[in-house]
Amino acid sequence: MWPLSRRHRPKQSLRLVGERTMFEHAVDRLAPLFQPEQIFVVTGAEHVEALAAQAPDLPPENFIIEPEGRGTAPCIGLGTIHLRRQDPEAIMAVLTADHFIADTARFRRVLVAAAQVAEEGHLVTLGIAPSSPSTGFGYIKQGESLGTVEGFPVFRAERFTEKPSLETALHMVESGEYSWNSGMFIWRVDRILEEFQRQMPEFYVQLAEIEATLGTSGYEATLNRVWPQVTKQTIDYGVMEGAEDVTVIPVDIGWSDVGSWTSLSELLPADEEANVVVGPHVGIDTHETLVFGRKRLIATIGLEGLVIVDTEDALLVCPREREQEVREIVRQLEESGRSKWL
Amino acid sequence: MWPLSRRHRPKQSLRLVGERTMFEHAVDRLAPLFQPEQIFVVTGAEHVEALAAQAPDLPPENFIIEPEGRGTAPCIGLGTIHLRRQDPEAIMAVLTADHFIADTARFRRVLVAAAQVAEEGHLVTLGIAPSSPSTGFGYIKQGESLGTVEGFPVFRAERFTEKPSLETALHMVESGEYSWNSGMFIWRVDRILEEFQRQMPEFYVQLAEIEATLGTSGYEATLNRVWPQVTKQTIDYGVMEGAEDVTVIPVDIGWSDVGSWTSLSELLPADEEANVVVGPHVGIDTHETLVFGRKRLIATIGLEGLVIVDTEDALLVCPREREQEVREIVRQLEESGRSKWL
Repeated sequence: MWPLSRRHRPKQSLRLVGERTMFEHAVDRLAPLFQPEQIFVVTGAEHVEALAAQAPDLPPENFIIEPEGRGTAPCIGLGTIHLRRQDPEAIMAVLTADHFIADTARFRRVLVAAAQVAEEGHLVTLGIAPSSPSTGFGYIKQGESLGTVEGFPVFRAERFTEKPSLETALHMVESGEYSWNSGMFIWRVDRILEEFQRQMPEFYVQLAEIEATLGTSGYEATLNRVWPQVTKQTIDYGVMEGAEDVTVIPVDIGWSDVGSWTSLSELLPADEEANVVVGPHVGIDTHETLVFGRKRLIATIGLEGLVIVDTEDALLVCPREREQEVREIVRQLEESGRSKWL
Repeated sequence: MWPLSRRHRPKQSLRLVGERTMFEHAVDRLAPLFQPEQIFVVTGAEHVEALAAQAPDLPPENFIIEPEGRGTAPCIGLGTIHLRRQDPEAIMAVLTADHFIADTARFRRVLVAAAQVAEEGHLVTLGIAPSSPSTGFGYIKQGESLGTVEGFPVFRAERFTEKPSLETALHMVESGEYSWNSGMFIWRVDRILEEFQRQMPEFYVQLAEIEATLGTSGYEATLNRVWPQVTKQTIDYGVMEGAEDVTVIPVDIGWSDVGSWTSLSELLPADEEANVVVGPHVGIDTHETLVFGRKRLIATIGLEGLVIVDTEDALLVCPREREQEVREIVRQLEESGRSKWL
């Protein structure tokens, strides 16, 4: 989401939808279901201060710091040992802080249902009913039906598929048997650690070494020593694809990964010219354009299908269908050493 | 030139070409020919401070304040009485502070030539060799040749034509007998006052009333009392079209009124993609686009023929061929009371 997101201003800290950051939205939607003490945040040291300020109700000790990112599997493993220390029989939900969920009530209801399924030892994944043959997500194939829980259908997860080709994605969406892998999981702490032990035994040993120092003065030193040796791995590849007893609950909760300016546009109200406008704007003959500013006035004349994103120190202007090339802009900035804009 | 120019930041104070303001350029190009004491500036009270700061060598008393704008004829008349007080036999040049002149050496040479012609009692206008059939300027028809002075051909000015239709402009440019009216004049102080007296007698009386108080404590009060009663008038319509002994010196001095972003583009160096870029920029597949910023990084992808102007508090994005509609943007801002951007 450059130029809004930067190295030191990740997506979860952005005010993309309304006046709340993505992280604030993520905490808000859990509030009716959980006490602040039950919500843990795993993040990098450089983001803790900003995130803690956005969620002042969370206990400071619930922010778990990763010395460096090693992929989603180690990240989740680190969170898990903290939860086991608090309650070895805990059920945990792995949720993301940089995705948008429109139907938060349904989201909370499916979490309650998923917890019941997880209680029985299943690893539960929330599947997203696909709204397009996206090649940007992993897919989960629904297998045998396990009935419904709290009104939600539950299936065995037959197969995890990495980001597919467009053709494959088309077939999968047409079949009605696949959902997007949202990266949200619900399981018992003991069950996921069992899977780590079986499938990522080296990491499990490292995790145990860290866990042994939890609550002692040696924790930070141990974590900082062990973590750089941890092999990078994703939870999908490292655990889910080979796990036993995986189930999927396909659900429509108005989910979006807000992975592009165009996908953000779809979440925000459009005016009668199909423009999505944030911040002061005056336009003549402007259509299907995203005008994303904040304070500065943006004046547009005779534009169609553009993305205009204005931030404090950088501005992006490009056609909607070419916004993927923002990566190339970032690469050029890196190469030319203009790091102040990264 | 919105959004760069504003009510309180007129074009002469903008850094359009290089790091000097238009006014600084205007003073700079006179410096080799005139002492600072010889340069007078007629302007509105709200602009004096900014302009004086840009030309610290000019004596403060050489800034002549118009209580309000009454058109070019009264503006020039006010300047004239100040000059007559200093030297009744002075030759004055009326020059503009918001136009660009590329060939400043030739400009100074033509001023020297024009002064010689003016010495004889002629009212001299500098005509600009037209580079296009512009409908945005007045035209002057060259009549009888009066020979050359200092290498510059001098003609009687046969006729002044207000902004023409495109068809008329095409004919005029093809004929080779017309030049643009640059609004720059050279004449003897006594001659122009003679014309004011003959053609704008009411104004001449008002001017005399003000002149009588010059150098006294009553000047400002008199000026402020009389000025609002002065009829608005342009020098072209009020004086030049009906004046006797008008001559024109057509000259090519790389003149531009910098009246639009496109005309500014023509003054600035273009890159190999025909983009004109001011300020930090990173572009992919961007062509024939004006990127006019200063500090903020402007990133562009897949654009052609756009104008992007970024200022501290407002931003304009529009196709080159529609930049005239910026006036409509300004009108909409006025109507909706968003005066902070005017």
